[in-house]
Amino acid sequence: MREATPQQQKKILVVSAHPEPRSLTASLTAFAVEHLRAAGHEVRLSDLYAMKWKATVDADDFPDHPGDRRLQVMGASEHATLAGRLSPEIAAEQEKVRWSDAVILQFPMWWFSVPAILKGWIDRVFTSGFGYGPEVPPPYGESALAGRRALVSVTAGARESAFSDRGVHGRLEDVLHPLQHGLFWFTGMAPLEPFAVFGANDLPEERFAVAQQEYARRLDGLFTDEPVPFRSLVGGDYDRAMRLLPGVEAPGAGGLDLHVRPRG
Amino acid sequence: MREATPQQQKKILVVSAHPEPRSLTASLTAFAVEHLRAAGHEVRLSDLYAMKWKATVDADDFPDHPGDRRLQVMGASEHATLAGRLSPEIAAEQEKVRWSDAVILQFPMWWFSVPAILKGWIDRVFTSGFGYGPEVPPPYGESALAGRRALVSVTAGARESAFSDRGVHGRLEDVLHPLQHGLFWFTGMAPLEPFAVFGANDLPEERFAVAQQEYARRLDGLFTDEPVPFRSLVGGDYDRAMRLLPGVEAPGAGGLDLHVRPRG
Repeated sequence: MREATPQQQKKILVVSAHPEPRSLTASLTAFAVEHLRAAGHEVRLSDLYAMKWKATVDADDFPDHPGDRRLQVMGASEHATLAGRLSPEIAAEQEKVRWSDAVILQFPMWWFSVPAILKGWIDRVFTSGFGYGPEVPPPYGESALAGRRALVSVTAGARESAFSDRGVHGRLEDVLHPLQHGLFWFTGMAPLEPFAVFGANDLPEERFAVAQQEYARRLDGLFTDEPVPFRSLVGGDYDRAMRLLPGVEAPGAGGLDLHVRPRG
Repeated sequence: MREATPQQQKKILVVSAHPEPRSLTASLTAFAVEHLRAAGHEVRLSDLYAMKWKATVDADDFPDHPGDRRLQVMGASEHATLAGRLSPEIAAEQEKVRWSDAVILQFPMWWFSVPAILKGWIDRVFTSGFGYGPEVPPPYGESALAGRRALVSVTAGARESAFSDRGVHGRLEDVLHPLQHGLFWFTGMAPLEPFAVFGANDLPEERFAVAQQEYARRLDGLFTDEPVPFRSLVGGDYDRAMRLLPGVEAPGAGGLDLHVRPRG
């Protein structure tokens, strides 16, 4: 662990999603919070199950929305965001994200994605006007939450090889594309490579110790590790129809790698 | 529309996820239900918002689970499934899936994935012992729900080019990989190519009419269109570490296409 000098002190939001306070997810969350605080950072925690976070978007999220009017979710959420009239628990989470220099999502992989309660945090918090949208310059993504780093910390029951380059489930980075690129890149955050603990259904003590050490290294590098170098829409890598310009990729590049600049 | 002869009559479960009964999602759901019924099929509908579906997995899902015992979600859900002791609303949805010859998921794409309420339907319904698991032969996926077809019908605000081969968001099929391969293939269902309506935030009347016609064609082909030819784990395409065997792919194939057999 490295201690932060005052100018290195950062603000970190940890969002955790598991119903069991004695789970591996809860242990990793507690470890991250303690490790980051011991390094001198400020940490806030959104423990979604403990908060009884409502997962579903509905009209209650927008108190000013007239009950008899058709709910156009993006429009209503944008209007409520810009008017400062989102439901208070959503506004509170937006304030935490805005406050933060980095966001860590800690969750078990359920059906190759986040648990519903965490999806509901994403659906409800990252409204138009907050995470993206015409009121956030420039007009299309990549900017609203710029300057923040983002780290996925995930546990998965499967073994690592099943998420490797030729693994049956697809590469971990491809499976997490909706988060890494869809959420983080789109809102202007800088996603790091995901941190994953595999074989998590029955993790022996000694492997948990190793996982903690690896996690500590990733937490220490939260503000110094190289983010995933996704290509830039506002930087001119895509045409007006939002297709990657011809010929910019390395020969043989394909799949979702098209959207990452060649490294090194 | 083609009318089904008695032996072509099938059972179809439509799962719909939108809070607004006058939404495009609700219109497409109603259209699908009517079109399939008019063709002679039996249709059941799970309208998740209308059902006030609980999105989050928690201990209440497993009434026999002792409150003071650590909740190991996969273990508890498998135990409750095999003992017939899942909460009644989960058991009811499992019965609908088991009854069906095809499942259609109708939803708006929110953050490059399903709305939280639908993620919660997936998280809670596809338990170990139902959708996969050691009690379902063979021991690892691809079989539990075999014989069923699966169709994603999604609406997205973005234009189609943004989800094309070189589109900034990634190809639609890659973005939907956690559903198409993660959920459907893994549980043994046969996923069709997704059906998508783009530019959905403000769809003019005439484009809605065109979308309905296209949807009708996809519904007519629900049991005759070719499913996505994902490779097979039980069929021997992968090694014991669950990595694709060397050299089986077409030259130049990469990304998630590795897991699809070359077509045609």
